[in-house]
Amino acid sequence: MAGNSFGQLFRISTFGESHGPAIGVVIDGCPSGLALDTDFIALQLQRRRPGQSVLTTSRNEEDIPEILSGIYQGKTTGAPITLMVRNRDQRPQDYAPLKEVWRPGHADFTYEQKYVHTDPRGGGRSSARETAARVMAGAVAMQLIRQAGMEVYAWVSSVKDVDLKKEIGELDLSTIDATPVRCPDQETSARMMQEIESAKAKGDSVGGIITCLVRHVPTGLGEPVFHKLQADLAAAMMSINAAKGFEVGSGFASTRTMGSEQNDRFAAETDPAGHPKFRTLTNNSGGIQGGISNGSDIVFRVAFKPVSTISSAQETADKTGNPTILENKGRHDPCVLPRAVPIVESMCALVLADHLLLQKSILL
Amino acid sequence: MAGNSFGQLFRISTFGESHGPAIGVVIDGCPSGLALDTDFIALQLQRRRPGQSVLTTSRNEEDIPEILSGIYQGKTTGAPITLMVRNRDQRPQDYAPLKEVWRPGHADFTYEQKYVHTDPRGGGRSSARETAARVMAGAVAMQLIRQAGMEVYAWVSSVKDVDLKKEIGELDLSTIDATPVRCPDQETSARMMQEIESAKAKGDSVGGIITCLVRHVPTGLGEPVFHKLQADLAAAMMSINAAKGFEVGSGFASTRTMGSEQNDRFAAETDPAGHPKFRTLTNNSGGIQGGISNGSDIVFRVAFKPVSTISSAQETADKTGNPTILENKGRHDPCVLPRAVPIVESMCALVLADHLLLQKSILL
Amino acid sequence: MAGNSFGQLFRISTFGESHGPAIGVVIDGCPSGLALDTDFIALQLQRRRPGQSVLTTSRNEEDIPEILSGIYQGKTTGAPITLMVRNRDQRPQDYAPLKEVWRPGHADFTYEQKYVHTDPRGGGRSSARETAARVMAGAVAMQLIRQAGMEVYAWVSSVKDVDLKKEIGELDLSTIDATPVRCPDQETSARMMQEIESAKAKGDSVGGIITCLVRHVPTGLGEPVFHKLQADLAAAMMSINAAKGFEVGSGFASTRTMGSEQNDRFAAETDPAGHPKFRTLTNNSGGIQGGISNGSDIVFRVAFKPVSTISSAQETADKTGNPTILENKGRHDPCVLPRAVPIVESMCALVLADHLLLQKSILL
Amino acid sequence: MAGNSFGQLFRISTFGESHGPAIGVVIDGCPSGLALDTDFIALQLQRRRPGQSVLTTSRNEEDIPEILSGIYQGKTTGAPITLMVRNRDQRPQDYAPLKEVWRPGHADFTYEQKYVHTDPRGGGRSSARETAARVMAGAVAMQLIRQAGMEVYAWVSSVKDVDLKKEIGELDLSTIDATPVRCPDQETSARMMQEIESAKAKGDSVGGIITCLVRHVPTGLGEPVFHKLQADLAAAMMSINAAKGFEVGSGFASTRTMGSEQNDRFAAETDPAGHPKFRTLTNNSGGIQGGISNGSDIVFRVAFKPVSTISSAQETADKTGNPTILENKGRHDPCVLPRAVPIVESMCALVLADHLLLQKSILL
Repeated sequence: MAGNSFGQLFRISTFGESHGPAIGVVIDGCPSGLALDTDFIALQLQRRRPGQSVLTTSRNEEDIPEILSGIYQGKTTGAPITLMVRNRDQRPQDYAPLKEVWRPGHADFTYEQKYVHTDPRGGGRSSARETAARVMAGAVAMQLIRQAGMEVYAWVSSVKDVDLKKEIGELDLSTIDATPVRCPDQETSARMMQEIESAKAKGDSVGGIITCLVRHVPTGLGEPVFHKLQADLAAAMMSINAAKGFEVGSGFASTRTMGSEQNDRFAAETDPAGHPKFRTLTNNSGGIQGGISNGSDIVFRVAFKPVSTISSAQETADKTGNPTILENKGRHDPCVLPRAVPIVESMCALVLADHLLLQKSILL
Repeated sequence: MAGNSFGQLFRISTFGESHGPAIGVVIDGCPSGLALDTDFIALQLQRRRPGQSVLTTSRNEEDIPEILSGIYQGKTTGAPITLMVRNRDQRPQDYAPLKEVWRPGHADFTYEQKYVHTDPRGGGRSSARETAARVMAGAVAMQLIRQAGMEVYAWVSSVKDVDLKKEIGELDLSTIDATPVRCPDQETSARMMQEIESAKAKGDSVGGIITCLVRHVPTGLGEPVFHKLQADLAAAMMSINAAKGFEVGSGFASTRTMGSEQNDRFAAETDPAGHPKFRTLTNNSGGIQGGISNGSDIVFRVAFKPVSTISSAQETADKTGNPTILENKGRHDPCVLPRAVPIVESMCALVLADHLLLQKSILL
Repeated sequence: MAGNSFGQLFRISTFGESHGPAIGVVIDGCPSGLALDTDFIALQLQRRRPGQSVLTTSRNEEDIPEILSGIYQGKTTGAPITLMVRNRDQRPQDYAPLKEVWRPGHADFTYEQKYVHTDPRGGGRSSARETAARVMAGAVAMQLIRQAGMEVYAWVSSVKDVDLKKEIGELDLSTIDATPVRCPDQETSARMMQEIESAKAKGDSVGGIITCLVRHVPTGLGEPVFHKLQADLAAAMMSINAAKGFEVGSGFASTRTMGSEQNDRFAAETDPAGHPKFRTLTNNSGGIQGGISNGSDIVFRVAFKPVSTISSAQETADKTGNPTILENKGRHDPCVLPRAVPIVESMCALVLADHLLLQKSILL
Repeated sequence: MAGNSFGQLFRISTFGESHGPAIGVVIDGCPSGLALDTDFIALQLQRRRPGQSVLTTSRNEEDIPEILSGIYQGKTTGAPITLMVRNRDQRPQDYAPLKEVWRPGHADFTYEQKYVHTDPRGGGRSSARETAARVMAGAVAMQLIRQAGMEVYAWVSSVKDVDLKKEIGELDLSTIDATPVRCPDQETSARMMQEIESAKAKGDSVGGIITCLVRHVPTGLGEPVFHKLQADLAAAMMSINAAKGFEVGSGFASTRTMGSEQNDRFAAETDPAGHPKFRTLTNNSGGIQGGISNGSDIVFRVAFKPVSTISSAQETADKTGNPTILENKGRHDPCVLPRAVPIVESMCALVLADHLLLQKSILL
């Protein structure tokens, strides 16, 4: 199966291993004539890049995207768009001893069970390095959905036990990148940074939650039954490394409410032409009803576990079956949440771009 | 897009509206030679059926599946398997007034925005009646994956604020159907029933969480990157009506832990042939690492909101934009969780059947 | 694989065996609001039906399509459209002895090799009876593409050595159904009928060629590289039972020409707004250049071998490996070409409907 | 739509324009552990390359494939395999004047109608340069199907009116590459070369037919109904630039025969274990019955028109609508048939690799 491809009409195929020559993506189905801002692609890569602050790994990826196809004079031509970054700072020696040990929380074991002959260098295809390809593709998708008016925002809403307690309406989303943790609240950010630094000091790691918001969504996006918008978003998010949970709108908390509280009531204003314009007075649905966007903001949350690579010693087994102690000297993040923000945005944009094109196709 | 189809190799297409002539499913890609127990299909339909107890709606669906194709002398032939149930007890008059009002929490509004010309009878395609088709297909998938040794169990683990507090290992899963709420703990079941009856008395509804467990999963199921097993399971579950959240293994709670606690350590036993046989000592991963099954039990949870149809009066808008009061006299469940148990099992079986076939295809 | 499904956005899944309870199709992705003429569906089925004349088998299929879903008040709703015909006149005893013999030219052998457990009644899924499902779906697709102005015509252009020698421009396409062979030329028809009757008298069968023409095709249909319009048409046609060859435009004959003869020169007229309107002066391309429709008529031809079932005695082997003589007493056509005309039209309409929807999706 | 992708399980996505930076392919779904002979990939590229003889264009493509992913220590890892060649010898000035003129027989017009904003350099995506990507992917697929015993051969069986008259059994297939035209008969080759040189002298071009043969095909490959083996082969072949027709086995000629001649009779030998081993005594079916391989050799033929680019003057229209004379000074083949041989082989191998993997998935 094309397990490395995503989307129906706006379809991407990613390739490359963490310590191979390059990481890249082929985007098929992007409409022609879209003016592409390549600086935005580079910016999103830069936001995903390790080494942005003391919070993140010091691996030095200078990711400058190379455009191999699909763009002519700054615009898409309808041909497949190929974007690639070379892997430079590889240091495979950091990973050498891993070859003989099953790393707890990692995919080494399952990859070797499934594929038998695998590439042991730095996680190969299971490495989060693969997400650089998604971010490049997402940056193209983002520019497509912006043409339809949509705006995607993601931010870190919790790190371990530190929760951002404000309502979305109280946040200044222009400040997301103002702190290294990408939480649009300065005081909460400071406490999150303490959690992360404390984990780092212990050679340990922490997880958290990212909230994603999409504004100005046209009504009607989403296919019924199996390609409900929330189903495709869930698949997109749960395909990101370390993602453990997904919820839309009122999510798991909705299970503690009554139907009479949960139901979003409809109300209408009158538009200039005298027609009723409907909206819901609350947004427990997260902007999606029956799998289809209702015009309200789309809101969902993604849970990320603490990253598996930690530098403190861990008991595990080696490949011969003997107990062993794993001590990791590689360069790693104590918390991937800040870097996962552009990845969540990218996967969200990819889902919306696909559904935007699908929606065009069904009109008589 | 084939939004009404699911799966790559074990692929189903469902059809039919809640108040049209029939509901059915075409299953394409089921291997030939599988002996099908049609009683099990009927049993699963029976478990999904309304009117099983005072807890569920009294709509009387006598769902006896008709086999239209794909079976010869009790075995699959490799041809598409078509299963259908006729809709009998339709009472469209129950739904007549809905035609002019946007029902809070329902898909009427978004369907009409998307499709303009829709079928207003009882929710049409967005009705949970559609899930009868999934349950029939899931009952076939279940028999396929049982041949590979897998066993799927689902149960209600919370209803509103009543939580099943026991660990999975403490449960007697043979008692799931012993109570009408399908919670394998008698005392918790009794309290859940009280919550549901209390909601019913108020003309209101309640939601909750279903836990799903798969035992004896072969290692190696799941495709890397975009078709990680948890991504396909998430899509499957989030495509079920009223689903609001999905989590695998330690899920959202993992965000409150440290990496050193979260990582599942490996250990080995020696098999009779003297080879090491690995397992993880804990199962925070929920049986999936890097998107691929590791041989431990797969565990995930699905959150369902309180069902949208309630009989107490609700403020909303009619289609001309005027405020109105909706009073619903149809027959409806105060809590869909018990009936959703076989739906969750079915969607889980469909995902695993598909990945089981995919896994065969990649071996040299 | 969903081998029983066809199309990307306008996607059909057919089901049913020749001697099972029913034959049917689920159409997913048809836009909503399309007014469906169900008489046209019945008419196309009637044209495909055996027993229309002395030329065709006397098996009596009273194919009255039952609509199971997707239509409300005469219009499509965007939900899957399910159309079904029951099998009535089954006479499985006609096929009983076939169970033990490999029929020359038939799929019994390969089906049993592939599936091991098969349905031996009358060819099961490999029977041309399956094409009734395609014709129903094609009749829906036809109504969709007619909204975009397209008109599809197919006719018998040769039977064995009798060729229709006239150019397309010389034909009166309204006379296709005027003769039982569906050749729009009375004199040629008469000679074709003689060939068929002669074959019938000998207990033998004959094949021939069907030409298909599509008028008023919008420019721009067809996806580059692998989903070129001619590639999808070829797949569609070669999936019809007994099809042996496909050619577009000048086809095989083009290999006998020089490039200077083959190339279609462009010329322009001026449209009322003063813009140039281009067309090619010849149509060797068959209306497709680079895989994309150029606005000229689409023209292609499909070769059908003589049907495999003949009533004269044939040497073959039985399933134990012994030589045997097969004498067939079932009811069969000496020539399937006339009945294949609506099948070719249907598959053509399905391809064009799919590409029409695809083309909408790529516009910014 | 992913129009630039091909295959279900062994799935390729090609990218790159003729005069952009690079041409490449991502192969998803190749099993792990396959030892890859990269020299064979280079050899096939070399066979497709222009400038091999006086017969072909002198454009100098030094196509050395770069492996970007999916291979570790000479074996596939199950990760996407990415192969790329840089475009070196581009000379876009050769194509400059084309920008303003519709070239007869080319895709400029339809691409501009479909995409509006296109890449005018040398045909962009519609150039046969794209087939270099297919050949690289096909060379991988070929190595996969060889593991299952299959051998693919293609050769030029006609150039304009010069036909290779020998039966397949009379040919020495090891001599295909012995002459520049790739026809395994020295005398016929010589006459074909005369035709091509004569066309070149006139500034004109010629077409012809390629025959493809696959030996040692396992029985059971091919999916019924819409993914019959001949349907997927037809789509594959008709997606190649300049292909105008496809036929399998007795093909168009079968329409001139009677059913009693056409039907391939079965006979059995006894294998060492005493079981019957069946084969057909003739091979009019071309190795495929009911869409499924029967174990005989697969045989099909593909018609290619004379290549559209010729150097003699042609009348056409410019983009403003005025008549003009096109004189082409670029470097072009008078006959693409010899270079199309590895392309036909490659597309054939891709179809068979896909069906080989599909077939594994359906077994219980």
